[in-house]
Amino acid sequence: MDGKEIAGMLSRVREKKPLVHHLTNWVTIYDCANVTRVFGALPVMAHAREEVEEMVGIAQALVLNIGTLTPEFVDSMIKAGKAANKKKIPVILDVVGAGATGLRTNKTKQILENVRVDVIKGNSAEIGVVAGVEAEVKGVEAISVKGEPKEIAASLAKKMNSTVVITGKQDIIAGADKIIFFVDNGHELMGKIVGTGCMAASVIGAFCAVEKNHAKASAAALSCYGMSGELAAKQSNGPGSFKANFFDEIYNLDEEKITGLARVSRA
Amino acid sequence: MDGKEIAGMLSRVREKKPLVHHLTNWVTIYDCANVTRVFGALPVMAHAREEVEEMVGIAQALVLNIGTLTPEFVDSMIKAGKAANKKKIPVILDVVGAGATGLRTNKTKQILENVRVDVIKGNSAEIGVVAGVEAEVKGVEAISVKGEPKEIAASLAKKMNSTVVITGKQDIIAGADKIIFFVDNGHELMGKIVGTGCMAASVIGAFCAVEKNHAKASAAALSCYGMSGELAAKQSNGPGSFKANFFDEIYNLDEEKITGLARVSRA
Amino acid sequence: MDGKEIAGMLSRVREKKPLVHHLTNWVTIYDCANVTRVFGALPVMAHAREEVEEMVGIAQALVLNIGTLTPEFVDSMIKAGKAANKKKIPVILDVVGAGATGLRTNKTKQILENVRVDVIKGNSAEIGVVAGVEAEVKGVEAISVKGEPKEIAASLAKKMNSTVVITGKQDIIAGADKIIFFVDNGHELMGKIVGTGCMAASVIGAFCAVEKNHAKASAAALSCYGMSGELAAKQSNGPGSFKANFFDEIYNLDEEKITGLARVSRA
Repeated sequence: MDGKEIAGMLSRVREKKPLVHHLTNWVTIYDCANVTRVFGALPVMAHAREEVEEMVGIAQALVLNIGTLTPEFVDSMIKAGKAANKKKIPVILDVVGAGATGLRTNKTKQILENVRVDVIKGNSAEIGVVAGVEAEVKGVEAISVKGEPKEIAASLAKKMNSTVVITGKQDIIAGADKIIFFVDNGHELMGKIVGTGCMAASVIGAFCAVEKNHAKASAAALSCYGMSGELAAKQSNGPGSFKANFFDEIYNLDEEKITGLARVSRA
Repeated sequence: MDGKEIAGMLSRVREKKPLVHHLTNWVTIYDCANVTRVFGALPVMAHAREEVEEMVGIAQALVLNIGTLTPEFVDSMIKAGKAANKKKIPVILDVVGAGATGLRTNKTKQILENVRVDVIKGNSAEIGVVAGVEAEVKGVEAISVKGEPKEIAASLAKKMNSTVVITGKQDIIAGADKIIFFVDNGHELMGKIVGTGCMAASVIGAFCAVEKNHAKASAAALSCYGMSGELAAKQSNGPGSFKANFFDEIYNLDEEKITGLARVSRA
Repeated sequence: MDGKEIAGMLSRVREKKPLVHHLTNWVTIYDCANVTRVFGALPVMAHAREEVEEMVGIAQALVLNIGTLTPEFVDSMIKAGKAANKKKIPVILDVVGAGATGLRTNKTKQILENVRVDVIKGNSAEIGVVAGVEAEVKGVEAISVKGEPKEIAASLAKKMNSTVVITGKQDIIAGADKIIFFVDNGHELMGKIVGTGCMAASVIGAFCAVEKNHAKASAAALSCYGMSGELAAKQSNGPGSFKANFFDEIYNLDEEKITGLARVSRA
């Protein structure tokens, strides 16, 4: 996938301004909404069981994130997810902290059993947990995973007939169609602040809302996201100034920059 | 209303440091608290039904915002609102997403039936929904509204005997006394980040705490808020740096700047 | 305590990357997580009663903060606190708004009766309320306290056999061993934004995770935190740019800066 194709997808996000409905965690909820907006889409955060289905009814993508889950909150997620499935809009699930506690692991399973999830996203250990391989998650941090992330992603994608995204120094995107993308954009400062993982899922949601090939959409989203981090890091003295610059660079992305910086490859 | 009068109101906020009690949404709760503080007032965010009445008891204004409402949360809002009415402190209601779902529309009605709201605030479509005219709200974004916003605001203000505020490129403030103010301060970058609408309600709350004429207070608040955005935009490369500069400019507002930049007019 | 000892503690935080489990408020939850991360530790925010004990099981410190408490949330705190006591990891309690409402005062007592708290932290009036002296708290702001803060802290530390921290222009840390530290690092801009109090508790949590003398850990944490504020203020035009610079300076702290700037003294 070349820069021109990626830039074309970003243009569609900006033109169509898809509504990305989130049920997410209370830590990074602002950043998830803001990154969606700065990328040119429209965010909405609504979790009451009395309104999630109706809100899905006007949305173009649904992002679920279990970062600060409770059983009641997961019930709302499942309600929203079923409505999204019925309406055939893409569902993205960020399995934050799967493996850290039984609740997270079990609720992830319950969501996956009740909702068709189009993009399953996490770090290498979280995805390892979902795939059933040995892995250690310290809070929301990947410590270790047994096996090759690329193989784990591919195997889970096949099993679930979904796109699987592992974020990290190199992002791995395994499509249901057996095609695997690597995204080498990004900067280490992105890992020094809280929220870059969660925000990535929101960006994937915005791109999946305008592109039916969810593996391509995810790769394009992560490439734009990562290159904005690269551009921001050049002007930053640390994670505080980085974050402000990061949003500036996302906002100022254009075809020229994307063409010059995109680093997406196929396995 | 001239710059001197506006600057006088800001001075009173800074001197009296009114406590502005919020029951707001989980997305922009930090920004609402922070903008209140940076304007010189004191924020407090408390939603437990066991304490909202007591917290209102030490507050000088109450801000309600339905951005991530649940029925239980609205129950707490109504409890707090009734206590505020009894104590005769101003109540500001931000009808975030009214019209997007039945829950939001109905709960807005329920609040307005149970609490005397002094300032009803929203974007043009949200206020249209409250006023009962045809309008489309996409998540929390105004898409369309049937009719002239100025007329809708004036008619709703009369019906409710309240101040009605429609925020947008030009803010419209319709007082219960039939006086209408326009505020032409502001910058388009304010609409590129999440939270500027919610924060505006907090600022209105701080000003209403020190000025009994709520239409004037709202106009002064939005003028100060908007001019800070103008000043911030001049130094910003995008929405990330803009947000940091915006808080700096709010903090550094003084009579000279306000006198030079205020753009408040009467219909 | 000299700069070298403080710098050594910070190095241990960065090397060991302790997991600091938070049950905190919804206003500053992001900043609490982020400051933990920027200091080099790992944050995790989890409040569901179904998982708090298990999350404590992989944590090295527990931070409790009652800023937006509900009775159910406090139940989760007590569950987590008991698990932390059993595991013998340090528990930090930030008594945000104690004294502002009966709920906050009573729930603080309930936590202290059910959980052994290693570090009790608040502003002068909040700690006054916990100690049972006359004090006024306006929302989350200290207005007045009867008596000498140093004496109140020392007496409460003795009574509870805990470390007591009063934050303010000069921070006071009273150890259970009767040793009292003063920290004179800090800058007034830290008080102009929301969240610096809450974040301080997170930093104390990270340092207590690597240092058994909790009074020393708290003093070192507050010294590093305060000097980062001093460094940030020099480059800032107001509270917006200050906040970004603050995180940069925390991230860039090193032994040389700490040795030159630390201002910790003993009573």
